Amino acid sequence: MAKTLNVGMIGYKFMGRAHSNAWLKADKFFTLKARPVMKLICGRDRAGVSEMAYRFGWDKFVTDWREVVEDPQIDIVDINTPNDTHAEIAIAAAKAGKHVLCEKPLALDAKQAKQMLDAVNKAGVVHMVCHNYRRIPAIALAKKMIANGDLGTIYHYHARYAQDWIVDPNFPLVWRLQSKIAGSGTHGDICAHIIDLGRYLVGEFAEVCGLMETFIKERPLPSEQGGLAAKGSAKMGKVTVDDASLFIGRFQNGALANLEATRFALGRKNGIQIEINGSKGSLVFDFEDMNRLRYYNNDDPSDRRGFRDIIVTESVHPYAGAWWPPGHIIGYEHTFVHTIADFVNAVVDRKPVQPTFEDGYRNQVVLEAVEKSAKTRRWVKL
Amino acid sequence: MAKTLNVGMIGYKFMGRAHSNAWLKADKFFTLKARPVMKLICGRDRAGVSEMAYRFGWDKFVTDWREVVEDPQIDIVDINTPNDTHAEIAIAAAKAGKHVLCEKPLALDAKQAKQMLDAVNKAGVVHMVCHNYRRIPAIALAKKMIANGDLGTIYHYHARYAQDWIVDPNFPLVWRLQSKIAGSGTHGDICAHIIDLGRYLVGEFAEVCGLMETFIKERPLPSEQGGLAAKGSAKMGKVTVDDASLFIGRFQNGALANLEATRFALGRKNGIQIEINGSKGSLVFDFEDMNRLRYYNNDDPSDRRGFRDIIVTESVHPYAGAWWPPGHIIGYEHTFVHTIADFVNAVVDRKPVQPTFEDGYRNQVVLEAVEKSAKTRRWVKL
Amino acid sequence: MAKTLNVGMIGYKFMGRAHSNAWLKADKFFTLKARPVMKLICGRDRAGVSEMAYRFGWDKFVTDWREVVEDPQIDIVDINTPNDTHAEIAIAAAKAGKHVLCEKPLALDAKQAKQMLDAVNKAGVVHMVCHNYRRIPAIALAKKMIANGDLGTIYHYHARYAQDWIVDPNFPLVWRLQSKIAGSGTHGDICAHIIDLGRYLVGEFAEVCGLMETFIKERPLPSEQGGLAAKGSAKMGKVTVDDASLFIGRFQNGALANLEATRFALGRKNGIQIEINGSKGSLVFDFEDMNRLRYYNNDDPSDRRGFRDIIVTESVHPYAGAWWPPGHIIGYEHTFVHTIADFVNAVVDRKPVQPTFEDGYRNQVVLEAVEKSAKTRRWVKL
Amino acid sequence: MAKTLNVGMIGYKFMGRAHSNAWLKADKFFTLKARPVMKLICGRDRAGVSEMAYRFGWDKFVTDWREVVEDPQIDIVDINTPNDTHAEIAIAAAKAGKHVLCEKPLALDAKQAKQMLDAVNKAGVVHMVCHNYRRIPAIALAKKMIANGDLGTIYHYHARYAQDWIVDPNFPLVWRLQSKIAGSGTHGDICAHIIDLGRYLVGEFAEVCGLMETFIKERPLPSEQGGLAAKGSAKMGKVTVDDASLFIGRFQNGALANLEATRFALGRKNGIQIEINGSKGSLVFDFEDMNRLRYYNNDDPSDRRGFRDIIVTESVHPYAGAWWPPGHIIGYEHTFVHTIADFVNAVVDRKPVQPTFEDGYRNQVVLEAVEKSAKTRRWVKL
Repeated sequence: MAKTLNVGMIGYKFMGRAHSNAWLKADKFFTLKARPVMKLICGRDRAGVSEMAYRFGWDKFVTDWREVVEDPQIDIVDINTPNDTHAEIAIAAAKAGKHVLCEKPLALDAKQAKQMLDAVNKAGVVHMVCHNYRRIPAIALAKKMIANGDLGTIYHYHARYAQDWIVDPNFPLVWRLQSKIAGSGTHGDICAHIIDLGRYLVGEFAEVCGLMETFIKERPLPSEQGGLAAKGSAKMGKVTVDDASLFIGRFQNGALANLEATRFALGRKNGIQIEINGSKGSLVFDFEDMNRLRYYNNDDPSDRRGFRDIIVTESVHPYAGAWWPPGHIIGYEHTFVHTIADFVNAVVDRKPVQPTFEDGYRNQVVLEAVEKSAKTRRWVKL
Repeated sequence: MAKTLNVGMIGYKFMGRAHSNAWLKADKFFTLKARPVMKLICGRDRAGVSEMAYRFGWDKFVTDWREVVEDPQIDIVDINTPNDTHAEIAIAAAKAGKHVLCEKPLALDAKQAKQMLDAVNKAGVVHMVCHNYRRIPAIALAKKMIANGDLGTIYHYHARYAQDWIVDPNFPLVWRLQSKIAGSGTHGDICAHIIDLGRYLVGEFAEVCGLMETFIKERPLPSEQGGLAAKGSAKMGKVTVDDASLFIGRFQNGALANLEATRFALGRKNGIQIEINGSKGSLVFDFEDMNRLRYYNNDDPSDRRGFRDIIVTESVHPYAGAWWPPGHIIGYEHTFVHTIADFVNAVVDRKPVQPTFEDGYRNQVVLEAVEKSAKTRRWVKL
Repeated sequence: MAKTLNVGMIGYKFMGRAHSNAWLKADKFFTLKARPVMKLICGRDRAGVSEMAYRFGWDKFVTDWREVVEDPQIDIVDINTPNDTHAEIAIAAAKAGKHVLCEKPLALDAKQAKQMLDAVNKAGVVHMVCHNYRRIPAIALAKKMIANGDLGTIYHYHARYAQDWIVDPNFPLVWRLQSKIAGSGTHGDICAHIIDLGRYLVGEFAEVCGLMETFIKERPLPSEQGGLAAKGSAKMGKVTVDDASLFIGRFQNGALANLEATRFALGRKNGIQIEINGSKGSLVFDFEDMNRLRYYNNDDPSDRRGFRDIIVTESVHPYAGAWWPPGHIIGYEHTFVHTIADFVNAVVDRKPVQPTFEDGYRNQVVLEAVEKSAKTRRWVKL
Repeated sequence: MAKTLNVGMIGYKFMGRAHSNAWLKADKFFTLKARPVMKLICGRDRAGVSEMAYRFGWDKFVTDWREVVEDPQIDIVDINTPNDTHAEIAIAAAKAGKHVLCEKPLALDAKQAKQMLDAVNKAGVVHMVCHNYRRIPAIALAKKMIANGDLGTIYHYHARYAQDWIVDPNFPLVWRLQSKIAGSGTHGDICAHIIDLGRYLVGEFAEVCGLMETFIKERPLPSEQGGLAAKGSAKMGKVTVDDASLFIGRFQNGALANLEATRFALGRKNGIQIEINGSKGSLVFDFEDMNRLRYYNNDDPSDRRGFRDIIVTESVHPYAGAWWPPGHIIGYEHTFVHTIADFVNAVVDRKPVQPTFEDGYRNQVVLEAVEKSAKTRRWVKL
């Protein structure tokens, strides 16, 4: 285990924290082909990034991302910055010969994503977009079962990603609610995840017809201190992204798609409810019970068929053996550890590792098709 | 309780059995304004209808529906026949001054439904379409809460009606899978129910965009003995109705709609999963747990909010007081008893009782709009 | 189906209503070997029993139970009276050659139960105690699976019957809370049910060690109008029965027993939570979801084991085929219909039908052993 | 944050891994009053402990625990060794003035635990026994609610800890199944946890009556390679600990206790099912859904009462704010991070931190009382 890989991470907030934790833990629980070294962390705010570096034990911090990309010691660049900066950083990193892990959504649009994909391909570096939910053990098990034919022909992919954090009309107009910074709202933030899981588990989309809605059109501008604005007192600004996004469609293999994403479902905190029905069985998943996969096997004897509530924590289950005994459940953050463990091994092997930038690009293509459909009120083929 | 109402029921199979049971039980558990008398049952098959009459204690049976409609003793005509006969019978019954209860869907199309509505209005009789799910106590409670404003502004109506009884490609081409008899497949049979519940709980639809699919295009013709055909041996016929029907849309009040109906969801027997999200709370219902309503109240203290699992069997709950002590649950058939109890009282009072033929008609208008949308691949306004 | 059996029912309140409904429905949903005729209903309160007779269509009512027992037309006597009257009526009925169905608990004590058992045996009549929960389809399926060896050697029977209707200390001192009328409280009323299910599903008890508790020692005497007493105003009386009863023990086959019954579990309305663990699998049941049986099969492949949530409504499931299509659930009252259907057929065949009076007697023996154990604070062998 | 505390950890297997992870993470997610330094790890197997040191980044490893206790640099000794060594190490550590964190059970028996308690008290060091389940956010919330009086008077504590890892009779006779090493089986290993939670949430036990059972009396001796023995081929040894342990009893405050622990419940992986019923409400918890607490509030309006399914991941919930956004769940290992975070702060403040060695001692007293009761077949007072 002498081999090491030096990591430079750019962006240190929510995702930066999740990734730092994963870099810290990956080789403590998985036997990796190389040991990642938390070398360099980068953030624009000196105070913030220095505290983060200190807290998580990054060797050094910088405030200009170019220093990461240009540092000859760095093997891997991990991008956790706002969406509008992914392309520039990733392309520069690829040109500099770095292997690149990039948070989703890969880019602001499909065109930009394609440029990123071309760049990593040209540079011959290993590339991965961080759709971490693919590596929930229950999802990885679902993938294995579907790939194995256990569900037969797939008829339905029915998914809903529901949260509730902006139902309050006094919730301020944060950057995530402004299209020029965030691109879209619910659509690119969370619908992107269930699109990715649809592509991963079922296949490529063939055509879509969608609808996007902004329920609360104006919101108080954020106070300088952040937090909820006082009622009635604040200056208002226009919400320029969607609060909910839903679409129906078809996969290339004939399965029907029904996807809905919303931030307006009170009681749903991070609810990702997926049901997949095939000719031989069905699978049901909910992120809020992410250690479980429900499986209906139509080959069970007729008087004892029922959805099995599989607790996906056995050593025979994907990733689960690295952790704790059966029934001792894991959480959200572990999905990042799995992602990084697989990425590190792929970097050592110089092999592709899903989801690649191509997956990131294709995801963006679907997102744009839905947006176009919502805008033109027409079906859009992919 | 001297007053009686004589009932003539037409059709005696699945729905006829459910209605017979309800006529039998309604005045035993509810104190009605009149006692229904099970006077006359009608069916085309003499052997079948006579056994049913004997079994359930109908005073007399006939094989021609006109004898029911023309019988001067009959006060109420209850129509449980195949869809293509509803209009003729209901219009004749209305003309004869009978009060009419009719199974859903009201008619084969909106035009026919409108004729039926006009007929009952002109005749001044009490009319009701049997959307029995409205009278599940949990649904009636949901209606009460929404009407009371407990959910605030509604943002989402997300409903899925899923069954699995025709997933096997060897399941034969029964009449329900032939459009000339059944009109549509999943769409008119079960999507109609979640459309009705959407109209009941949320409001009128404004626009829809839908998709209908037939997964299994050919099926064995039914053997004369019924049942599954032997594999490979049978003559095949073309399936002319939809196996699944889904649509997105908007209600007039701005709520978003997402409805999906399918007979291809293995493991779902009679799953009607509904989630309604509003600005103050959410409701979740599943028919397979029909004695429960899940309710999220955003006004609960912030550290103890969660979906409440209400067992809707308390005497304070709609209809529940007529039955058994709390926790002693009821079933599918009870929804028909509630329907008939309310209908009987409405007949005595000569008052409208929801869902009226107008509801049946409006339901049909939505069904047609979705079909048109699926055919033209365009949004359709209502 | 020309054969008929004339039924005389004694007692018309909660159980009388449940039984009337079952007599009404049994031959409408099951094809019985004889048709029961609702001939005679008996109750001490003339007004009450007459209304009940009228409502449910009993041919005639009387106010003295002896008239039922002595009526030569009557074939079956169905006893739903308070517990202290069961023995006298049942013994008289047996002597008169009537077949006897008796509500549980069979008697006030084991001695009395034994006398009843001797009487029916001597008379050679068919006898049954109404432990209706045995005929919940999910429980009947559990029985079938265990008898079939699907669970292997049984290690644990863990059961809790929990209600909450007397948690309020102002709930009045009704007769059920007075030992001279009710015998015991929770113990004989609901613990008796999980004892019976333990005997039915697992086997005979070998030894027990128990504990009984009365949490609220005094309660307001009931007002003449019934209902809750005004706080502080009422005269108080002593509660002479248990509020909770729990015991541990062993079955003769070596399985461990853990049973708890309580009326002090807020939120549990009629919660009967049972878990049975064997060497090959486990079963879980909760009455509040009575249409479901959860089954863990250790022979499933190691990566897809989980509790199956079986919706026990398929035509292959016990009793379920008589009712509605899969997923169209049934309720509490149906368990009485199943009981009566089986009883009627047994009467025609002159064959024993479980649970017999012997089961009622053995149940009482266990109840007494627990009471003795609780009183003496010692283990008691059976 | 200049202050540091040097940690010496003894034992590096299952618990050592869980603690290493917690030492690694505590100050990355919580702002502690001192930064723990992973200084010294100790294990008897040189190869094993060196790999663990390397993997988790402990500064140095040793193979003799005395080196840890005697090292003047060490501030905290964290004991994760087999139970029979806890006392000697902890007492030596206390004498050396080290603060001590010790895995449960504290000792082999109450007498030994008392000696440990005396030692830490005499030394004036901070001491804690690692009952990590107390710091599941849902349990901490339950504690807060009960302490706040939200449940009123407690009537029932009903708990079951169920696993299934030794159901196979070919599972070998590992040290945990030998009394001379493990003390007891299920009893001290997992029943100890639900005893501790009972003491934490409800209060001190007053009297108990228990039962312990060994279902499989002989097992194959472990092969040298470990793992399951070949059927029939292996030499057999006697199982000298309990497979299941259950008891009923009373708390000093009058609540009833029903506790059951078993390793013979197929399908239960790490199921800790707890129900607490009080005069104002109830709580339900299951470890396999550890991010949730179910709460029934009897003060809710009568038509909308139901168990609330609280996802305990809000920033207002105990510990949850340190982690991820609402609905992004955490797992088993986080409970150790919480434990260590609180312990570190207590060490800095030189203040007691629950559960102290006194809790560990009292736990042992209850364990012994149950064992004595099971052996003598009598009630035992505490």
